[in-house]
Parts: sequence; structure tokens; C-alpha cells
Amino acid sequence: MLSIEEHELHTRCLIKYLMFVNGKFCKDPKMATANDFSFSGLNIPRNTGNRVGSNVTLLNVDQIPGLNTLGISLARIDYAPNGGLNPPHTHPRATEILVVVEGTLYVGFVTSNPENRFISKVLYPGDVFVFPFGLIHFQLNIAKTPAVVFAGLSSQNPGTITIANAVFGSDPLINPDVLAKAFHLDIKIVNYLQKLFGGNSE
Amino acid sequence: MLSIEEHELHTRCLIKYLMFVNGKFCKDPKMATANDFSFSGLNIPRNTGNRVGSNVTLLNVDQIPGLNTLGISLARIDYAPNGGLNPPHTHPRATEILVVVEGTLYVGFVTSNPENRFISKVLYPGDVFVFPFGLIHFQLNIAKTPAVVFAGLSSQNPGTITIANAVFGSDPLINPDVLAKAFHLDIKIVNYLQKLFGGNSE
Amino acid sequence: MLSIEEHELHTRCLIKYLMFVNGKFCKDPKMATANDFSFSGLNIPRNTGNRVGSNVTLLNVDQIPGLNTLGISLARIDYAPNGGLNPPHTHPRATEILVVVEGTLYVGFVTSNPENRFISKVLYPGDVFVFPFGLIHFQLNIAKTPAVVFAGLSSQNPGTITIANAVFGSDPLINPDVLAKAFHLDIKIVNYLQKLFGGNSE
Amino acid sequence: MLSIEEHELHTRCLIKYLMFVNGKFCKDPKMATANDFSFSGLNIPRNTGNRVGSNVTLLNVDQIPGLNTLGISLARIDYAPNGGLNPPHTHPRATEILVVVEGTLYVGFVTSNPENRFISKVLYPGDVFVFPFGLIHFQLNIAKTPAVVFAGLSSQNPGTITIANAVFGSDPLINPDVLAKAFHLDIKIVNYLQKLFGGNSE
Amino acid sequence: MLSIEEHELHTRCLIKYLMFVNGKFCKDPKMATANDFSFSGLNIPRNTGNRVGSNVTLLNVDQIPGLNTLGISLARIDYAPNGGLNPPHTHPRATEILVVVEGTLYVGFVTSNPENRFISKVLYPGDVFVFPFGLIHFQLNIAKTPAVVFAGLSSQNPGTITIANAVFGSDPLINPDVLAKAFHLDIKIVNYLQKLFGGNSE
Amino acid sequence: MLSIEEHELHTRCLIKYLMFVNGKFCKDPKMATANDFSFSGLNIPRNTGNRVGSNVTLLNVDQIPGLNTLGISLARIDYAPNGGLNPPHTHPRATEILVVVEGTLYVGFVTSNPENRFISKVLYPGDVFVFPFGLIHFQLNIAKTPAVVFAGLSSQNPGTITIANAVFGSDPLINPDVLAKAFHLDIKIVNYLQKLFGGNSE
Repeated sequence: MLSIEEHELHTRCLIKYLMFVNGKFCKDPKMATANDFSFSGLNIPRNTGNRVGSNVTLLNVDQIPGLNTLGISLARIDYAPNGGLNPPHTHPRATEILVVVEGTLYVGFVTSNPENRFISKVLYPGDVFVFPFGLIHFQLNIAKTPAVVFAGLSSQNPGTITIANAVFGSDPLINPDVLAKAFHLDIKIVNYLQKLFGGNSE
Repeated sequence: MLSIEEHELHTRCLIKYLMFVNGKFCKDPKMATANDFSFSGLNIPRNTGNRVGSNVTLLNVDQIPGLNTLGISLARIDYAPNGGLNPPHTHPRATEILVVVEGTLYVGFVTSNPENRFISKVLYPGDVFVFPFGLIHFQLNIAKTPAVVFAGLSSQNPGTITIANAVFGSDPLINPDVLAKAFHLDIKIVNYLQKLFGGNSE
Repeated sequence: MLSIEEHELHTRCLIKYLMFVNGKFCKDPKMATANDFSFSGLNIPRNTGNRVGSNVTLLNVDQIPGLNTLGISLARIDYAPNGGLNPPHTHPRATEILVVVEGTLYVGFVTSNPENRFISKVLYPGDVFVFPFGLIHFQLNIAKTPAVVFAGLSSQNPGTITIANAVFGSDPLINPDVLAKAFHLDIKIVNYLQKLFGGNSE
Repeated sequence: MLSIEEHELHTRCLIKYLMFVNGKFCKDPKMATANDFSFSGLNIPRNTGNRVGSNVTLLNVDQIPGLNTLGISLARIDYAPNGGLNPPHTHPRATEILVVVEGTLYVGFVTSNPENRFISKVLYPGDVFVFPFGLIHFQLNIAKTPAVVFAGLSSQNPGTITIANAVFGSDPLINPDVLAKAFHLDIKIVNYLQKLFGGNSE
Repeated sequence: MLSIEEHELHTRCLIKYLMFVNGKFCKDPKMATANDFSFSGLNIPRNTGNRVGSNVTLLNVDQIPGLNTLGISLARIDYAPNGGLNPPHTHPRATEILVVVEGTLYVGFVTSNPENRFISKVLYPGDVFVFPFGLIHFQLNIAKTPAVVFAGLSSQNPGTITIANAVFGSDPLINPDVLAKAFHLDIKIVNYLQKLFGGNSE
Repeated sequence: MLSIEEHELHTRCLIKYLMFVNGKFCKDPKMATANDFSFSGLNIPRNTGNRVGSNVTLLNVDQIPGLNTLGISLARIDYAPNGGLNPPHTHPRATEILVVVEGTLYVGFVTSNPENRFISKVLYPGDVFVFPFGLIHFQLNIAKTPAVVFAGLSSQNPGTITIANAVFGSDPLINPDVLAKAFHLDIKIVNYLQKLFGGNSE
């Protein structure tokens, strides 16, 4: 049988899940308040003082429990001036549509094999762009001022796979020979990249 | 057989539809450009000089053809100072999540029968709120300055049913006896409302 | 941790939910009987002695647990003679198809913005009509005898939003200024309607 | 290129299909009338003078074009007195829920391997029964009077596979050795059954 | 309240179910191992020494818990030489696509009413065939050597309904009069078949 | 209006698409043959004499038109001895389940942010492994003999994004500064990789 802690963990997962399942509340009165459907503070600029110079604040079903089964979430993304980059990534369960609030962004996505077409554009405030379901995409701040966007994603839990981190920084690390061959890189470069991206496994 | 015009109409519907269907392009080269996935001008304040004092700019699959089958759309909503109202409405095919860019909004939604619970909150810049699939909701500007939000909707064609317009302003009008009985209103008031909201049928 | 009562509540929700999830029974022997898939008494005329003169008996997953995840439910609707009305409402999660068993009904639905087209018809015994997903619709008995229909709905829990009740009778009430502005009604009429429809919150 | 006839055929398929796809009309004015959402004559008893003594009148998207993409259909089924049988069949794309309008029916369905549990019940007027998605089910009139039901099905095109006809009466016929082995029947009986059920292939 | 045993049963169902629901782990560390996503031994020929001369090894969510919510499963099917038969059956929740690894198979499916078209082919090693969602299909080994296929199915829990077993071997048995009438068989033959296929109910 | 060629192109897309849409044939007789549901030659070893030493033969809706809307496809993958690699890739619209027919494979996938857990295993003949929807995964032949697998994918058009090709070999190329920053690589290495992988754009 499960321990108390395991049981409580699973029960909490369960309660959250059942809230809206099939469009039915399980009628837990604590669930049905405005707080389950709201979140505050998305007006506050995020710290972009990291290696890539960007910061994603995603509000999914973990932050807003009322989103469960409703198929949508929302994000704010901040970009540092002069090259702040939301690096190439995919959302395994969502399309993304963003609107630029301020700044100038070079954005794009790549279609699947065999074409691998790169569809890109420079965006200014008020511009909107769509990144289709599951495709690799990125945004780069090409101006001297910060940039900010809001984005809708078509899942209550879209997930994010940052390509560099998943490939070179997984836990545990992927056998470097695989990556050297796949990316046509010298094994020493792979080792170097794995040390760099694999920090969270040390 | 169809006339040329009808045929062309349907062919255009078809082409747009087939673009991404099953995740497959029909490889019409004109489709696969950045323009099919973008839109400009959402930074420009909209005119709120109408009766309710609000203006919704929805970018769905008609404005951004690349959204087709991707299950998401995006809107900007402007509210006039001192009572600009996005009046009670539903989206028959979408949940909505919005973030307040500026202003102070009193927002809420009503759950279905028999509870008809009204879940509401006052929102400030940076606040986020969710309006679940198909439920009646509204937003009211309660400050002396304009308000603006961006909203994600979980469909490429969410649809909007403004309750007052659909009920009192349909084309043709609903038999006024139905509405008098349903809303417990004097028939003269129904006649007055139908004249008011039914303008587009004259 | 949850109290015993809360735990039992959630466990019961859970069991019902898991019954057919992914097409898999959790093999609770009590579930797999004919009673989980049946209901009796839909031949008995319902009492229509209420303000609107109609009575909806909906058999959804709460009445027939075996419906869970199966995407359908069934209703009987009775209408009083001379104006029995199933007032304007939406099903946030279902299309409805009905067949008239007896009586003469004036029925219709309104399409979404901006057309708000009203599609209506007078129905006689044996006539069938479809109310598409999420649209506002109603049925009115226009004969001197009672009317009865059976209706299929495309969800095991379609939900019903009676417009007048959700708008004027929510719990708590919507700020009357919102409704006065949205429906172009004098505030006194809104107050009157809220007193009328909001009875269940007193 | 397609002949005129082929082209027209496909165009008609297309138009019907596109009507509601993604919840979007292609705005063919002929489509948006009440006739696209209605059907008449389901009150008229059907002829049950056939071998099995039953008659199914299914209103799917072919009879009611407005049903397209809406996920529901409706049927009337008539049963002859003293053994009228809607023989064992499946709906490959739908769950069915029926209500008995008149008569006494012995109904049931069989769950999948390995249990093959037979869940059955005798139904009287006003009784409701659910036949879950894809399972084999039947209804038998066990009274001396005719029986009638109305049924909702969770697809605009549920499909029907009558087991005996699909197995013994396909076009062309299945190799009789397959059926003899599968059903443990003498080859002569298979030949006899194939002659009986395969009439439509001659 | 539930007994300990019932509780544990439901909790285990729950845990398995919640693993990937909405693409979200409930972060039970025991779940996230390679063993939850793998299975061994599908290279070993299965025993086909049974009445029909075939053996299906289906790996669904019960064998590979990581499949939950992922919508796919995999099977190995072995056929005895000289007539090993995977008898007519349906998968109520899946399409099947198979590839012949060795042997010669006569395969086919029957479309739904009213056409009941039988689409068949003789397959050799390396041949692939599709059995569409919910249709009756079978495979017969027509060579003097064993045959083996691998098959993908489009559900983590496709289900299987073997027609002969569900019709003649259900538990409890279907009233033989129903089957005699449906299949146009003498009641004695039905009784014989029910004795044969209904073994598991004795 | 469209040119003849464009029209024919779109009509062909249309015909293929409509074949099974909503489970409905448009009754084009040419469609309903066994050839629309089959494919031959998957027993023939593929040439693995390329840079990575692997070869994927995917049978999706383009090779087997009858798969349309049925949600599944099938692949054979060949791996060269001593390091044949199916390099890191995702399927934007599918989960994959494979069975090893011959050889020894080191396989794995990486979960999404922030964990980026690498789940891996060495597989032998008869071993089965699941690569969940949208996650990065690969297979490496670690033996001195060729390897072969069959794989089912949960979409009729799963799509494949080979990470190295989409990132470094898109058409046109992604701005190398983006990739240098994202992957922490010297710009010269990026230039070198883009020359290597971008061959198809020259």
C-alpha cells in the first residue's frame, strides 16, 4: 500500500485533475473560486541576466489550476537588449501565437523533413506570429532595448524542449559518440558542450 | 453544376482548409510564407466610441491563414474609460485566457445550471484571468483611463455570441412573445430592445 | 491531508470517472451491471406547472454512470399547452438533435456574430431538428395541447446555460450596471429582473 | 483531369463537408436554411415485414447535412410483434442511447475479450439503455404488439455493421473455409448461409 | 467507505492513469524508468496449438504502463502452418496496420452496411496491410510454414471482439432464439455452437 | 481563378482527403481497392551507406492513401553495423513504438524542461520500446551486425524533425549568431556545420 506521503501526492494530483474532467466539477467548494482561474504579476519585467539573455514565465495548469482540461496557457517572455535569445525549442503539445509588446525580434521556425524550410520575420511592437505545433522555433532581440511578448499556447501543459539542453545537457548525459556522429562534431567539442549544458546533473 | 463564382468560392475555402489538414501541406508554394503566419498592427489603440465602449480585434484563421487546424487564436481588446464594457458573451468553441496590459477591469463568468455561480475579480495590469469553454463572461473598465488586454483563445475560429445581440437583435428577429416570457419582460420593452439591437436587419 | 469525508467524495468521483477511461474498466464488479447503463420512467409526463411551462429531464452521466467518456446523453422535454417554453439557452459542450413525439413546436437557434442569423421552423410530430454546438436555441409550444420531445446530446455531460437565469439570476448577482449597459435596460428593470431570477441566492 | 461528372461529385462532397468544418461556414447561402437542420416523418411506423422483423431509420449527415462535424445522429427503430429483431451489430464510430416509446424489448451488449460479458435487460416504455462504443448489441421485441424506440448516436455518421451480413453476406464472399473454421460450422452450412445472406452480390 | 483492498485497487488504477494525463507526470519517481516504456521477448514464437491455430501477443497499456494516453500499442501474431487463422474480429477503439515478417497470409476486411464490401489480398513477407477502425477483419495462413506478423494499433487499449466468441460464447449466453433468427441457423446448431464457444462460462 | 494545373493539384489533395473523412467515403470507386490499404517490399534491407548509417522507410498516408484519418503509420528502419545511427529527432504529431527484429540497439529519449531526463536502454531482438509524443529520441546500432526494427507511429502523417538538419541545415539557413549563442559554439564551427548540413539548399 502507498505511504501517507505518496497517497497525499496522488490524491492532490487527482483532485486537480478531476476538477473539470468531462466538464464536471467534483464539487469541491475550495476549487470554485476566482483564484483558481487567475494569476498576478505578469506586468513585472523578468530578470534576463542569464547566458542566453531571456526569461520565459509560463502560466500553465500548475500555476492556474482552473486551466485543467481547457486546452490553453499563457506566457510572458522577456529579452535582454542586444541579442537576448529564446533559443531553439519545441512545445511537444502546443502551437504558440505571440504578440510583441515592445522591442524588435527576429523570429522563425523550421518545417519538418525533408524540406526543413526556415520561415522567419522581423517583428515590431504590435506584430503577431504563429509557431505551428511541435516545430523548432526561436526569438532573438535585435535591438538595443529590452523586448517583451505575450504568447498564447494551445495546451494547459504545453511542455518545452530546449534543443541544446535536451541534447547536450540531459540527466544523465547521452553517450557523446551519439552526439558527435549526429551533429558531425569533434568528440572534444561534445564533451565541452556536455560539461556546459549538463550542469544540473552535477 | 456550380457557377464559376461559386466554384471559385469553394475552391478558395478548400485551399485554405487543406493547408495544414492532418498536418499535411498540399504544397501550394504561395501558402508557405511568413505572411501566412503573421499579422501587424496590434499595438494601435482601437476606437472605443461605440455604445458599449469596447472594441475586440480578433485574429483568427480568417486573418492568419496559417492558424488553420492549429487550435489557437489571439485578440486585443480595448475598453473606453469610465465603463467601457465587453458585454456578456460566449465563445462556442473556445476557452479564453487574458492578461491586462493597462487599466483596471472588473471581470467574471457564470457557471452553468443549476448553480449559475458568478466567479468575478478586479484585475490590474499584469493580472491574468481564465474564462472556461462556453461560459457567459464579460469585462468592464472601472477606472478613469483606457484599458487594454491581450487574450489567447483555444480555437482557430472561436466564434463569439454576444448575448444581447443574439437574443434581441437576430436576423430575422425572434418572436417577441418568446423573449417576453423567457426574460419576464413587458412586450413593449422587448419591442424596444429589438428595435435597438436589430438595426442590422433593417 | 484530506478528511475522511473529502477523501470519500473524491474517491467516488474517481471511481466513476475511471470506469471507462481509455476504454478500460478498473474492474469494479459493482459497475459492470445493466443498471449502470439504464434508466427508467422517461414515459411519465413531467410537471410543467412552472413559470415558463416546460420541464427538461436530462439523463447524463450523473443518472447513468455507464455513459462516462462515451460522449452522449438523452433528454425528455415536456411543454405545457398554449405557450410552454424551453427558454433560450446553450449547451456549452454539446449539439442537440430532437424528435417531436407529440405537439406543435416553434423552434430555432441563432448563429454567432456578426450575422446572428435566426434559423427557425414549426415542428410537428415526427419532425427532427438540430441545434448546433454552443448556439442559443429555444422551443415554444404553440398548440393547445401538451408537447413532448426526446433529444440526443453529443456529450455525457452537456451542461445547460439558461440565458435569463445566468445573466439575471447568478449567485452572487452580476453588478446591475453591467447588465443595464449590456442590454440597454433601465437600472430599475435590471433590479426587478435580478430580484425575479435571483431567487435561489436568497 | 477529372471528368465533369467526377468533378461535380467531388465538389458536392466538398461543399457538404466544408459547411461546418472548424465551425466555419463557407457561406454558401443555400446551406444556411432550416431545411439543412431538419427532417420530417419520423412519426410514421416503418414496414417491418422483412426476415428479421425490424426497420432502422437512421438520420445521419446524408439526410441532415447540417449535422456535419457536429458528432450526433438520431434513429427510429420499429420492431414487428412477436420477435421483431434488430440483429447483433456494431457501430464502428458511435455509442448509442435509446428510449423505448412503445413495446417490450429484450436488449443487450457483449463486452470485449477475454470476458465477453453479456449485459442485458428487458425494457418497457420509458426505459433507456446505453450500448457502448463499438460493442456488439441487439434488441428483440418479446411482446405481442409492435415496439418503437428513438435512439441518439454519438457521430454524424455512426456506420452499422450487421454481423451476420458482414460475415456471411459480404461482396464478394469471404472464403467459406475461413468462416467454417472461425465459427466451427460445417462447410455446407456456411455455403447455405452465404447463399442466404449474399443475395445482394448476385 | 471503501475497503483497503478496494482502495488500493482504485489507487493503482489512478496512478497508472495519471502518469501521463494531459502530458503531465504526477512525478512518482518509480514511474519514470525505462522499464515503464519497454517489454521483452517478442522474438519468441508463440504456441499456436489451439483450435484456430493462431496466437496474438498484444502489448497494450497493461503490459507497458508508459503507453498511457499515448494512443498506440503493438502486437505479434503467430499463425500455425496450413490454415492458422486469426478469426474475424474487430478492435472497437483502433485501426491496425501490420507487416508480414514470414509466411503467406490471406487477409481482408468488410466495410459497413449497406455495401459490406470485402477488401482482401494475399500477403507475402514485407507486405503491409491496413484494417480500418472498427471493421471486421481476419488473417489466414495459406502456406505450409508458420507465419508471423507485427502490427501497430492506434490506441493504448484497442480492445478485441472475436465475433464468434462474443456472439456464441458470451457470459452469460445470449438467448439462442436471438442467434437462430439473426444468423438463420437451426436452434440445434446454435445450442451446439454455444456449448462449444461458451466453455468459459461453465 | 486557378490555373488548370493548380486546380488539378488541389482536386487531387481533396479527393485523397475526403476518402475517409468523418468515416465517409465519397464513393470514388477507384479508392476502394486493396491497393489503397497495402504496400509491398518492407522485407528488403535498405541501403545504409550514408553518413549516419541508417535508413528510415516510413509508410504514411502518402504511400498508403487508405490510412487517411485513421491515425497510424508504420516504418522499417535499417542500421549499419558498428554505429549505424538514427540521429536525435522528434515526431511532431506522433508517439512511436518499435520492436527489434535483429541487432542490438542503444536507444533513448529525453523528457522536457526542466528535468531533461534521459531514459535509455540497450535492446535485443524481440525487445519493444516506446518514444512518447514529441520527445527527442534516437537509436544506435552497437553491434557488429546490421540491425532492423519495425515501428508503429500514432498518426497517418507523423512528420520527422531531425534535430541536426533542422537546426544547422534549414533552407534558408538560420542566422549563425543565433546558433552560436544557443549552442555555445564558436561561430566558425557553426559555419562549418551549416555548410555540412545545408547541402540541400545549394
